[in-house]
Amino acid sequence: MDISPLQQVRYAYQPKLPAILRKDIASIAPAFGEATGAPTDADAIKALFPHTYGMSRITFTEGDNKAVKVQRNVGVILSGGQAPGGHNVISGLFDALKAANPENTLYGFKGGPSGILEDSYQIISSEFLQSFRNTGGFDIIGSGRTKLETQQQFEVCAQVCKKHAISALVIIGGDDSNTNAAVLAEYFLQKQHGIQVMGCPKTIDGDLKNEFIEISFGFDTATKTYSELIGNIARDANSAKKYWHFIKLMGRSASHIALECALQTQPNVCLISEEVEANKQSLVSIVEYIAQTVRDRAEDGNNFGVVLIPEGLVEFIPEIKALIDEINHLLSKEESAFNALSDSEQRIDFVSSRLSNNSREVFTILPDEIQKQLLMDRDPHGNVQVSRIETDKLLSTMVDARLKQLKAEHTYKGKFSSMTHFFGYEGRCAFPTNFDADYCYSLGYNAFCLIAAGVSGYLSSITNLCAPANEWNAGGIPITMMMNMEVRHGEKKPVIKKALVELQGKPFKYFAEHRAQWARKTCFTYPGAVQYFGPAEVCDRTTVTLTLEQSN
Amino acid sequence: MDISPLQQVRYAYQPKLPAILRKDIASIAPAFGEATGAPTDADAIKALFPHTYGMSRITFTEGDNKAVKVQRNVGVILSGGQAPGGHNVISGLFDALKAANPENTLYGFKGGPSGILEDSYQIISSEFLQSFRNTGGFDIIGSGRTKLETQQQFEVCAQVCKKHAISALVIIGGDDSNTNAAVLAEYFLQKQHGIQVMGCPKTIDGDLKNEFIEISFGFDTATKTYSELIGNIARDANSAKKYWHFIKLMGRSASHIALECALQTQPNVCLISEEVEANKQSLVSIVEYIAQTVRDRAEDGNNFGVVLIPEGLVEFIPEIKALIDEINHLLSKEESAFNALSDSEQRIDFVSSRLSNNSREVFTILPDEIQKQLLMDRDPHGNVQVSRIETDKLLSTMVDARLKQLKAEHTYKGKFSSMTHFFGYEGRCAFPTNFDADYCYSLGYNAFCLIAAGVSGYLSSITNLCAPANEWNAGGIPITMMMNMEVRHGEKKPVIKKALVELQGKPFKYFAEHRAQWARKTCFTYPGAVQYFGPAEVCDRTTVTLTLEQSN
Repeated sequence: MDISPLQQVRYAYQPKLPAILRKDIASIAPAFGEATGAPTDADAIKALFPHTYGMSRITFTEGDNKAVKVQRNVGVILSGGQAPGGHNVISGLFDALKAANPENTLYGFKGGPSGILEDSYQIISSEFLQSFRNTGGFDIIGSGRTKLETQQQFEVCAQVCKKHAISALVIIGGDDSNTNAAVLAEYFLQKQHGIQVMGCPKTIDGDLKNEFIEISFGFDTATKTYSELIGNIARDANSAKKYWHFIKLMGRSASHIALECALQTQPNVCLISEEVEANKQSLVSIVEYIAQTVRDRAEDGNNFGVVLIPEGLVEFIPEIKALIDEINHLLSKEESAFNALSDSEQRIDFVSSRLSNNSREVFTILPDEIQKQLLMDRDPHGNVQVSRIETDKLLSTMVDARLKQLKAEHTYKGKFSSMTHFFGYEGRCAFPTNFDADYCYSLGYNAFCLIAAGVSGYLSSITNLCAPANEWNAGGIPITMMMNMEVRHGEKKPVIKKALVELQGKPFKYFAEHRAQWARKTCFTYPGAVQYFGPAEVCDRTTVTLTLEQSN
Repeated sequence: MDISPLQQVRYAYQPKLPAILRKDIASIAPAFGEATGAPTDADAIKALFPHTYGMSRITFTEGDNKAVKVQRNVGVILSGGQAPGGHNVISGLFDALKAANPENTLYGFKGGPSGILEDSYQIISSEFLQSFRNTGGFDIIGSGRTKLETQQQFEVCAQVCKKHAISALVIIGGDDSNTNAAVLAEYFLQKQHGIQVMGCPKTIDGDLKNEFIEISFGFDTATKTYSELIGNIARDANSAKKYWHFIKLMGRSASHIALECALQTQPNVCLISEEVEANKQSLVSIVEYIAQTVRDRAEDGNNFGVVLIPEGLVEFIPEIKALIDEINHLLSKEESAFNALSDSEQRIDFVSSRLSNNSREVFTILPDEIQKQLLMDRDPHGNVQVSRIETDKLLSTMVDARLKQLKAEHTYKGKFSSMTHFFGYEGRCAFPTNFDADYCYSLGYNAFCLIAAGVSGYLSSITNLCAPANEWNAGGIPITMMMNMEVRHGEKKPVIKKALVELQGKPFKYFAEHRAQWARKTCFTYPGAVQYFGPAEVCDRTTVTLTLEQSN
């Protein structure tokens, strides 16, 4: 068997475009709006981006557009972690490019941004592309985490583009990659290289979002895949009635994924890092909150439940953040003495004895396993790898210990058995939902229309996404208008602001209004597997988060 | 949101029945075949089952069947672990029972077999049932692991049945539960209680299978759900090209789930416990095999891959099995001395120093974490909990260590980073596939037809399952004809033989013929999410295992 039955039929799916992009490509014309500006730090951004600051927003309307037929070679790069729909961005870009002029050529640079630096590419042909349409993964050309940020790299990019007569690059990536796309666009204009640069908003984490980007692609599919699994586990919990499942969810710092999954599945507990930080909640108080929920449910005879935990949680707990900072500092300072100790208990003693009183206290209450993870699994810079900390086990172990204490005090009589899970890799390469398949195809198709409009430094933008696809809007946003200045690695830099969960936003508020009921009662909903062929209400709906955000 | 969109539409799905069961229920008549016998231990089985041994196989054909209209109350029990489709067995049973006589009543005993002992039940009404049709989970009445095996329990069952005028019980369970159903049927006949007993073959593990049972229900859905996730992870591996994913799969002793998932996804490595045992493979040789695959792929520049590991593996590795037996024996003998030690290192030393030389050697090569798991996570009888051993981590840690050794010897130059996963609870309560929805509904409907046929001690049997549902055969198998005598807990008992993976069977052979290619090349297939509404080849196909078993 070479391909699965679903692969076979998904190849034949025709993604839906916004009405304007369904027209003959020579009759899709750009309309330029008023000049834009960055909301904060306008002067600094303007100074850094003299050629690309203040450009107009673009929308597409019907009109004569002969320029579209000019022969062009275009390059495309996948940057960073996988997100469902990347293949469709490339499909949309390819189809628009070939519709404009069959002589156009699409270069896919291989293995991420390093592909262009190494002039490693794949010419995308119709036949080659066919076996990737509407499927997940970034395997069509691969991805990578190299960052394009130095002038030296930019020059190599220019040379490689000139070698292949490439006049435009499309960079598919997250906030960092799109920031770098803007810097590259500015550089090419400054040096008059004549190479346009467009970005596309990719990330399952959902943190590349603002008033101009309604959702990053992949978030819809990833959260639906995780919600399928959470729902299945919740139903198992509700059937067996004997386990508490602690489920950690990928998503980096922001809790968008956990929140969306909570809205889809109605678990008993879902922690939101942004709220933990806002309330300066301690680890002990989080444990107490979960333990209290377990006790309340035990009183009703329900010794089971589901707890969702965002990947980035520990960074938002003030005393844990302080502890990690101290450990990072300590181990960089006394690295060789620490490394000379081979025994994990000795290492724990070594660190513990050198911590501040506050941090030592925090370190001491952590389960052994977690103490070890903090000291052992460090990244190449010697820093604690926060994403590797098994927060699911940390919390279940501490809740268990707390409940044993309460049992000894005769204030808790229930039974507590827990299971832990981590979902991340399960969702990043799923077949894109119809929504992501349509959205990504539109983003790619639209990116070509921006190229044909002759601009650079724009993000491909498709909006009005809660409506059916034919009502979506298509256009472009100058990346500079989404930037502000932030300190990164000790340096002030122009960046696209990362979107965290807004505690005043409608999705969080809806969650906050319902969570007490979801905690005490069993209100699980079971989303089931992503569907591609059934009724529209099952197959084409986007996220609850976006639906709530766009509701009145 | 009370229910998900998929829940809503699945309620409306009408499961497909075999053609014979689609007829007016009063025209479905039993045809009795020749007398049956047990293939081995016939005399012993006959002696133990004087009333239910040697009964005829039953098939259903068109014919006049007035007996079906007699008013009946029926009880139903879900026994053991969840499997997708349990709700549909109950739906099929209910619909047949009401079609036969609207005055019939279905009693669902709650929380598994203990429900009947405690007379705890739910009357199944049409309205109540509606919100469970075609959904996963056993939450309609719950399940449990109490075993019905003593005469005292049987008497309570009889009394409770008589109290409610219940004249038939349907027990939905695995091999043990169906064995107990047969014993109960025999007991009721012997005591002339006038209560019929039928079994239904349930288990995601796929180990309740023989020439009369083509597949146990739930296996199809669970393996498709795991394969969805494995495919997604494989695609991620193939996109990022930097991780080896070690994935442990639920399934108890047998490797049917791992094998089916391998046939669906074509991973680089899939271990089959039955083969490990047949070849008396040591842990070290398994590690060597995986490490060699990693090296081979590294030579082609592919530092990524997927390894599938069946849950029961360690029990099939001879020296680990011996080690576990020794530890169990040792800790039961010296329990208090061992428990007096609080420190895990002391405990490890305590055990290590008391093991035989062979076992000590094996124990020593295990990673620290696994040593601890062997000593810490013991069941209420003090035995090692084999299913809790993180075989995924065990193997990835040992492969890592072996590759480091090879690197030091300059015979390996690749990079090795691993991730571990365990899939089990994600699949046991998924929405049943169309296959499981149809199969289970048919099993339940058919179980009622067996009741109407007046027999007892039968297993509901639906066969010819690779054909479309209307071509399926419906009938009943005397449970005694599937029994043999085995020693269980030191006692010789009549049991249904557990089906392990047959190394001479077509599914394993197909795997064995292809695995070398799958190991070296990247041949992943991506099954994607279970579909309910699309083309039949995507939505209605059953497992690759069954398809191969029934191929010529």
